[in-house]
Amino acid sequence: MDTSYHQLKESGLAKVRAAIRAGQYQSHTAGLGQGFLQANLAIMPKAFALDFMRFCQRNPKPCPLSGVSDTGNPMMFTLGADIDIRTDVPAYNVYRDGSLIETVNDISDLWQDDLVVFALGCSFTFENAVQQAGIPLWHIDNNKTVPMFRSGIETVPAGPFSGKMVVSMRFVPEDRVAQVVEISRHYPLAHGAPVHWGDPAEIGIDNLESPDWGDAAPQVQGHVPVFWACGVTPQVAIEQAGLPLCITHTPGHMLITDVSEYAEVPNYQTDTHFKGE
Amino acid sequence: MDTSYHQLKESGLAKVRAAIRAGQYQSHTAGLGQGFLQANLAIMPKAFALDFMRFCQRNPKPCPLSGVSDTGNPMMFTLGADIDIRTDVPAYNVYRDGSLIETVNDISDLWQDDLVVFALGCSFTFENAVQQAGIPLWHIDNNKTVPMFRSGIETVPAGPFSGKMVVSMRFVPEDRVAQVVEISRHYPLAHGAPVHWGDPAEIGIDNLESPDWGDAAPQVQGHVPVFWACGVTPQVAIEQAGLPLCITHTPGHMLITDVSEYAEVPNYQTDTHFKGE
Repeated sequence: MDTSYHQLKESGLAKVRAAIRAGQYQSHTAGLGQGFLQANLAIMPKAFALDFMRFCQRNPKPCPLSGVSDTGNPMMFTLGADIDIRTDVPAYNVYRDGSLIETVNDISDLWQDDLVVFALGCSFTFENAVQQAGIPLWHIDNNKTVPMFRSGIETVPAGPFSGKMVVSMRFVPEDRVAQVVEISRHYPLAHGAPVHWGDPAEIGIDNLESPDWGDAAPQVQGHVPVFWACGVTPQVAIEQAGLPLCITHTPGHMLITDVSEYAEVPNYQTDTHFKGE
Repeated sequence: MDTSYHQLKESGLAKVRAAIRAGQYQSHTAGLGQGFLQANLAIMPKAFALDFMRFCQRNPKPCPLSGVSDTGNPMMFTLGADIDIRTDVPAYNVYRDGSLIETVNDISDLWQDDLVVFALGCSFTFENAVQQAGIPLWHIDNNKTVPMFRSGIETVPAGPFSGKMVVSMRFVPEDRVAQVVEISRHYPLAHGAPVHWGDPAEIGIDNLESPDWGDAAPQVQGHVPVFWACGVTPQVAIEQAGLPLCITHTPGHMLITDVSEYAEVPNYQTDTHFKGE
């Protein structure tokens, strides 16, 4: 039996994860498990893991690394007490040689002893903080997908991973831009401060009305386009790298962790507690 | 001819680096190249690099990763326009099988094609910010080394790397502690917010008068001991791991980068600039 989004939205994290693990919920995770950090996913053979980790370190705004598994271990033990990455994400995209070959809801059959899992922070955290400051976000209020663009900004390459930075765009009232920059800078695990605001052409974007992904947002008088580094960047880099096998989350269908959304470090057990000898 | 500390303290970054590269300056770097990020160093064979990178990701407060080289490439191209890690640090400690075997001023002869360089943020950045807020720091004002302690806090292990967290301690006036926590939290690449303040026994430290490294600081009425995660933590983890070869900076003798001390991301070319197609 399918569990509905509206049922789960009122539920605690344990119920949400149980429904996903059981395959009863296979849809997007926006607004679910409120208060907990959500993450993008990239799973690849160990042979590529060091280069991918370097790519994330060199491009921390599009690729904010929040968790890395041990090789071959599907349990994400820094992100939660019982997170099995093979079952605890609503939907996965499976790529072979750089091509999407299928979308599945469980990757137990695909698991290999040489796989390494990377969890990357997403924009939900800073969006919540911006909304709490009283600044409305069009795509959330209208149940749309944020518009995303392939910018002219080059990422710093590492091994086979490279490419242009993908950015997401939100219109912000001109007199609130400085505040939005300040707020989002405090969330380095959620893409940090914007990479640009104002004229899109300055970062190589021609037309705000035709995003490369997501829905076009209506221009409003007195609003400025503000651009953040986007988690689609590593997905594009991974596709271009043409790895023999790579598994990502299906866009919007994220891993929900046990880490507080506002945690300083991405560990569900804060690293500052001494439990006695 | 030796270049003196006092000469270099008034010099720009280019002169400082040239003196270090030429072997004319082989001493500590505190206060040199002001305004630029300094970094701890760990150089090891690629076979251990993925696990060490996981150790840093899992323990970001003691091990804030600010740069990682390509395998076998001694140029730290994200941290500066011309940083050669073989010559641009005043002094290096060379470990074989976990034991310190020598301290040298140039590692060109030791360089191997399988080496990976890790640069880790250090405390100088947040210390400058704390001082600028008008809060004095005893060890700096008295030209001492900050007291450091092996705490009871366990790091999160990764491969051969594990062990207790080393913390540094600074006494702070009781009514400024909240401010100091807030300030340092803004510098995740410089160890972030303190891991503890108040009773040392709560993090397994018996006696503030006998630090494991550095100089004991005098207790002052109305001051509270505040503990930050310390960059000695990865050094201890590396020693315990007993790698066949590992090269670190000699404590206090850091890499000075081209990255602004207050940069959001550790790249000397900000990643937000679009230079045109």
